[in-house]
Amino acid sequence: MHFRGIAFGLGLCLAASAALADPQTAAALRDKALADDTAWNLLESLTSEIGPRPAGSPAVARARDWGVAKLNTLGFTNVHVEPFAKTAWLRGTESGEVVGPFPHKLVLLGLGNSPSTPPQGITAEVTVFKSLAELKAAPENCCAGMIVLVNQPMTRTQDITGYATAVAARSAAPEAARRGAVAYLVRSISTSTSRSPHTGAMRPPGLGVKVIPAAALGVPDADLIEHMAARGPVRVHLALQSHTEDTAAWTVSGDIPGSDPKAGIIVIGGHLDSWDPGTGAIDDGAGIAITMAAAKLAAGAHPRRTIRVVMWGSEETGGSSAAYLAAHKKDLGDIVIAGESDLGADNIYSLQLPAGAWDAPDIKPLEAVLAPLKIMASSAPAEEGGSDVEDIHGAGVPVLALNQDASRYFDYHHSQDDTLAIVDPVQLRQNVAAWVATLSVLADSNFNFRKGGK
Amino acid sequence: MHFRGIAFGLGLCLAASAALADPQTAAALRDKALADDTAWNLLESLTSEIGPRPAGSPAVARARDWGVAKLNTLGFTNVHVEPFAKTAWLRGTESGEVVGPFPHKLVLLGLGNSPSTPPQGITAEVTVFKSLAELKAAPENCCAGMIVLVNQPMTRTQDITGYATAVAARSAAPEAARRGAVAYLVRSISTSTSRSPHTGAMRPPGLGVKVIPAAALGVPDADLIEHMAARGPVRVHLALQSHTEDTAAWTVSGDIPGSDPKAGIIVIGGHLDSWDPGTGAIDDGAGIAITMAAAKLAAGAHPRRTIRVVMWGSEETGGSSAAYLAAHKKDLGDIVIAGESDLGADNIYSLQLPAGAWDAPDIKPLEAVLAPLKIMASSAPAEEGGSDVEDIHGAGVPVLALNQDASRYFDYHHSQDDTLAIVDPVQLRQNVAAWVATLSVLADSNFNFRKGGK
Repeated sequence: MHFRGIAFGLGLCLAASAALADPQTAAALRDKALADDTAWNLLESLTSEIGPRPAGSPAVARARDWGVAKLNTLGFTNVHVEPFAKTAWLRGTESGEVVGPFPHKLVLLGLGNSPSTPPQGITAEVTVFKSLAELKAAPENCCAGMIVLVNQPMTRTQDITGYATAVAARSAAPEAARRGAVAYLVRSISTSTSRSPHTGAMRPPGLGVKVIPAAALGVPDADLIEHMAARGPVRVHLALQSHTEDTAAWTVSGDIPGSDPKAGIIVIGGHLDSWDPGTGAIDDGAGIAITMAAAKLAAGAHPRRTIRVVMWGSEETGGSSAAYLAAHKKDLGDIVIAGESDLGADNIYSLQLPAGAWDAPDIKPLEAVLAPLKIMASSAPAEEGGSDVEDIHGAGVPVLALNQDASRYFDYHHSQDDTLAIVDPVQLRQNVAAWVATLSVLADSNFNFRKGGK
Repeated sequence: MHFRGIAFGLGLCLAASAALADPQTAAALRDKALADDTAWNLLESLTSEIGPRPAGSPAVARARDWGVAKLNTLGFTNVHVEPFAKTAWLRGTESGEVVGPFPHKLVLLGLGNSPSTPPQGITAEVTVFKSLAELKAAPENCCAGMIVLVNQPMTRTQDITGYATAVAARSAAPEAARRGAVAYLVRSISTSTSRSPHTGAMRPPGLGVKVIPAAALGVPDADLIEHMAARGPVRVHLALQSHTEDTAAWTVSGDIPGSDPKAGIIVIGGHLDSWDPGTGAIDDGAGIAITMAAAKLAAGAHPRRTIRVVMWGSEETGGSSAAYLAAHKKDLGDIVIAGESDLGADNIYSLQLPAGAWDAPDIKPLEAVLAPLKIMASSAPAEEGGSDVEDIHGAGVPVLALNQDASRYFDYHHSQDDTLAIVDPVQLRQNVAAWVATLSVLADSNFNFRKGGK
């Protein structure tokens, strides 16, 4: 017993002499996080007190004030708001129904950046394509005066690849338009069997490309139209109203100051805006709650580097990543690494770091700290840190990726079912535990992520 | 080989001398059903060609014609329609929103038999009860001028007990009304986390009981109001329109005639009407499809008793069970046993028969025929055969129950998510296999279910 005690103490001394980072501190913070409900309370507060908060809505301004208040209450410093200009797309009334062979109300959501239909709507026959590839292979004259439906199912995957593959169909209205279509419908980019449609933004079309109204159908509604169309002509009426508005958006930011002001800043966070149908619990209230709770816990161990929690203000319809780069061009060199939590609240299963980082003696021990959480040290270098850090990453800021299990994320994402009801408090805590352990080790490490440690 | 062949043949002879029922025929029909898509095709047809079909709607008249056509196509005899009077409750426009502390659109569905609100709606503060028991224990003056919300969660169970326990809250508007409430909201009687509300009929209130407008909220919406109400007053605006209409409903019926006209009739089926939000795939298109497909398969083995498939025409808002008794009072003695499939399309896990039936030598072998389907021969005598055979059962007709696994049924039941997308074709076939094996054995059995075999 005594002998083992001595050996243990000796091991600690050796570790301390090799590096500043202390895996025992990280492990203690991890275990504290597993019993901590700060993230849950933040998420319950955001969804219950603010609700859905699309960029450009009055709600997102309330969310901004909520973010400032929570950062102050939790003891963050340098709490401030960075405004930027935003042209918002805002949903109006929307409806759709099959008018023949028999009347049937459809469940749909307009896609972000879709133009409105005429006030009286559009009525036309639907032509169904079972995949985007099938539409792309169709002749130019296939669809004159028709409504195109692309009914391509999405593959369920643990990582983002199922979504990344399927989502192209959400921006394929121009493919339909140049084949003469008057409107575009897409099966929701979703793994759900629910009728709650998944909305999302369409990529702005290229110059000179005709823009037609576009909406996502609930998965069973898309299948139903395909089944109906196999029997004969199906006519659909669509009425989609929306408008754009020149408004403002805001980046909300707060710091856990590091003990060494020259050691640089770790930027983490989530996005404060959400789509409008749900209450934005997993997209991305969870990311805000997880990173804020993790940074707050990390503060207790007095990190050497500053940890900055950022709430980006316009991820869903774009803009906050570019705005963040524009606002921080001058101090970009201070950011040693950045990462975003934006894939829900289910368990993290791997951590990707910049090339070379896992070999650093003061980072290597993090592998053992994360292992009990069932998180792998991924050998693949981090190449994406989240859509809000994309632009600063492009400008040279290294990124990390704590990869969440997305297996059920796309059952709810961008739909009315994105609410607190689908968040598992136990998995939410695992996320906080992973983030705080990672923050603790990276904040105390000497590793230079920009140069592969050189 | 030869010896065993002889022994096998001998066994068959002995079985045949003991009873008419032949387990080998039942097993062969079972296996045929496991590779048969008749039920799937019927269900795809009903949901794609008719859609939702509430009693009193034009759609249910189309469903009646669909039923007649399908029975004729599949070779049933004595195909006919039995009309009965029906006062239908039909949904109009409905909306609800939190108006304070901040505006938030609610997802809700009016409950069957709810009166309308005034055209301009009702706006009032919500008072939340976490269970029906809590409401019942509240003083008479608790809720004057308020909207009562009962937010009692439902327990997920394999059988019907979770629902049977929770569903009382759906008819508790009178409890709220006599405490002064102006409207009643109930958390959907659902195990889902989706916002798709579960509708359903309220039991007609007793004489002299005040009736107030009532609606079901999506589960997360009910939770959200509870979370909001914990912080301060919550005001909600409700506008619910509906009307009743004196109309007709229809029982559709067809026979697989037995080889012995004096051996009696086995009545099976499902209900043709559905709630309006979904396409009525699991409630109860599946029951129609399963029983029709099973009877059709059973015809190939020339059953001794007649198998009658009945599509009841008004289960959801009541009436078809009583109408069936009224129409068949004179020939009730011909019905040897009855059963309904009305709990979805997931696997059957047990068969209950009338007392004494499992001991009959020509029924006992059914246990071994069902065992490979993972179906238990339940020792509990069948006491309920489904809500459409309740009245004839009350008048003396014995019933059987092929109990379906309802674990996920109440995630979708009575909601817009009751569509073909949630039906598992493999489990659907297991249902048909169980029904056809059971039908085959019972149709060829001599057992008198009325008298416990005496």
